[in-house]
Amino acid sequence: MLKEKTTVLKFGGTSVADAECIKRVCSIAIREAESANLIMVVSAMGKTTDGLVKLAKDFNSLPEGRELDMLLSTGEQVTASLVAMCLHEMGYAASSLLAWQSGFITEREHNQARIAKIKTERINEHLAKGEIIVLAGFQGITECGEVTTLGRGGTDTSAVAVAAALGAQKCDIYTDVDGVFTTDPRIIPEAKKLDLISYEEMLELASLGAKVLHPRSVELAKKYNIDLSVRSSFKPEDKGTRVIKLSEVQDMELTQAVTGVALDKKQAKLGFMGVPDTPGIASKIFKTLAENNVSVDVILQSVPREGIIDIAFTVNQDYLQKAIKISKELALEVKAAEVVHDDDIAKISIVGAGMLNKPGIASEMFTALYDADINIQMITTSEIKISCIIDLAQAEAAVKVIHEKFNLAQPVQEIIV
Amino acid sequence: MLKEKTTVLKFGGTSVADAECIKRVCSIAIREAESANLIMVVSAMGKTTDGLVKLAKDFNSLPEGRELDMLLSTGEQVTASLVAMCLHEMGYAASSLLAWQSGFITEREHNQARIAKIKTERINEHLAKGEIIVLAGFQGITECGEVTTLGRGGTDTSAVAVAAALGAQKCDIYTDVDGVFTTDPRIIPEAKKLDLISYEEMLELASLGAKVLHPRSVELAKKYNIDLSVRSSFKPEDKGTRVIKLSEVQDMELTQAVTGVALDKKQAKLGFMGVPDTPGIASKIFKTLAENNVSVDVILQSVPREGIIDIAFTVNQDYLQKAIKISKELALEVKAAEVVHDDDIAKISIVGAGMLNKPGIASEMFTALYDADINIQMITTSEIKISCIIDLAQAEAAVKVIHEKFNLAQPVQEIIV
Repeated sequence: MLKEKTTVLKFGGTSVADAECIKRVCSIAIREAESANLIMVVSAMGKTTDGLVKLAKDFNSLPEGRELDMLLSTGEQVTASLVAMCLHEMGYAASSLLAWQSGFITEREHNQARIAKIKTERINEHLAKGEIIVLAGFQGITECGEVTTLGRGGTDTSAVAVAAALGAQKCDIYTDVDGVFTTDPRIIPEAKKLDLISYEEMLELASLGAKVLHPRSVELAKKYNIDLSVRSSFKPEDKGTRVIKLSEVQDMELTQAVTGVALDKKQAKLGFMGVPDTPGIASKIFKTLAENNVSVDVILQSVPREGIIDIAFTVNQDYLQKAIKISKELALEVKAAEVVHDDDIAKISIVGAGMLNKPGIASEMFTALYDADINIQMITTSEIKISCIIDLAQAEAAVKVIHEKFNLAQPVQEIIV
Repeated sequence: MLKEKTTVLKFGGTSVADAECIKRVCSIAIREAESANLIMVVSAMGKTTDGLVKLAKDFNSLPEGRELDMLLSTGEQVTASLVAMCLHEMGYAASSLLAWQSGFITEREHNQARIAKIKTERINEHLAKGEIIVLAGFQGITECGEVTTLGRGGTDTSAVAVAAALGAQKCDIYTDVDGVFTTDPRIIPEAKKLDLISYEEMLELASLGAKVLHPRSVELAKKYNIDLSVRSSFKPEDKGTRVIKLSEVQDMELTQAVTGVALDKKQAKLGFMGVPDTPGIASKIFKTLAENNVSVDVILQSVPREGIIDIAFTVNQDYLQKAIKISKELALEVKAAEVVHDDDIAKISIVGAGMLNKPGIASEMFTALYDADINIQMITTSEIKISCIIDLAQAEAAVKVIHEKFNLAQPVQEIIV
């Protein structure tokens, strides 16, 4: 009864927001089910999760992780059952499955658990009966039978994980945008949809605040080489953006130096000013922050002058208050003159698989910013990414000049090496 | 860490309708937890279940039982997690548990599953840690790991079942009424709250449409001799109504002949008119109805006249259309002249543990109705109950005259036998 191919389709909150949306995604699923064993992975409807978080606050200002997971996981359960009902109404066999039924085992880290393994026996049993499987995304259980959730955007990760576990040939992430763009189309209307992007670029873009895919889902897709696409459930005929191996993108020789521009306005900057330059200072600071679960992004250490250095770094704004508290305590230990902070900043980044082979990309970016009178406060680079911290007020102007500088609104040119 | 006593408290939908209600029931639970291992069993908030049923209809006119259970069971999950959060906020250790965690095993009869057993290990583990347990009521799972629900009012049954499984000394059912009344106080404002009632009387009242307790919960309490009380979560200082053994009620010699009057307006009458009186006719009719899951309540067979009989019976209005369809098919087989039906009827019943020892109760009831010009269409009796089918339009007048006839608004008199 099992078909040769297996396909996983993920539908986000906006794609299952109401009955009309759910009928639409069921039609997509039915078409795909003709040629493959089909697994749908669904999010909570619309803004359900936000509503539940808000509801919890009426009962407890800081809800315990275990109970919050118990509450939030109902959102996906509701969608999964409604989608199965809708498929029945359309004449198809289907079963919804919850994490404890589909064997989604995670570590015991409530609210942001990572998937440990998927015991696929039960999914396979239902598939063998010719049913479409509707998995409640976002949720998991621990080996001890506690309910967990994977953190915001976790349903992307659920979908890629089940695709990997089942050896699926394809994982399509359906959302409310047409795919991955060269930059946020709300800022730059000329932004162009990309047909292809590498896992690595996608990963940088995802981490940089382009909210199209959850970074962990991209990592997982890269690890298991899943053929991942980002598509619009409102335009199912469009192919969206395919996410593939970096080497494949490069082999295609269609690579522009810069693939996209990402903007992250949720950054905040902290600085230890006037610290005596003794060995182990940076290590002490960042070890303490890590121990307190504060993720640090960009780090900048000044060149010592008269035995004194400044150490600056950025964190997500959500962690700013915690980071300030820790930093003020640390300041005494490391004998810093003062701790300063600023959340009126933004991080602008260019990402591109072709960046490595093309020198001078960084200077082009800096020049574009300089020409627009935009001051660069910090810089960080990776093999396929350059990020600058700038003033928040200039953030969108910066995206515009960089998008123009690299001609991202133009059709992709075939680059003959 | 375990206390000697174990108490189960059940809170219905109106008792957990909002944050204020939930705080109130948490206060009740905390007081009880001082002296006992405490299990709370909670329903979905307010009208949540109705809302979910309505939602399902947007997707499927006749949702499959499996998926409906998947959907409906989220209601209790939401309440259980919020109650646990609320207890945390008040400074108490608590854990919510779902059916698959608390080991609530049922048969596989979706939407109205009966409980097969409760594997109490996990509940006991949490109790041993000194936690208040918050069980999601109404839900169960099959041995194969399918989600089931126990049918409307099923949370009462969840509570009594867990009380039985744990050998609890007490099971209090908190609701929005003060207890069990001699009749519906909305019809007869003078109706009096009963301090004590026997399982048997409660069972008759429950089956007769007094919606205070789910009949299955009363049966279960009777079977396991659970000390059951019906109390108001809005007046926790009141003792409510205690439900105990018939023999205990009788031993107390406080028994009035009639304990209460119940009215059921959801009945419908069907009649096979002019059937040739051959053996096996009634058997054929009621066997066929039973095979089609139509529960029949009152049955009346006329005395044969010229070899012809009439057979009339009542069913719940929800099953009327189905019963009509089956009856019309049967009519041909049993050669009935016609099938008639009428849903403008009501069943009025008097219930009393003292009825057995007091002859003439039935005639008093009939006289009261006769004096008020109320025609009796059908009669049925059990050891502690007499029911009459009357015209729907006279239903409330009938309750009034019978309530008066048996002096049910008067304080209970000690009856010296």
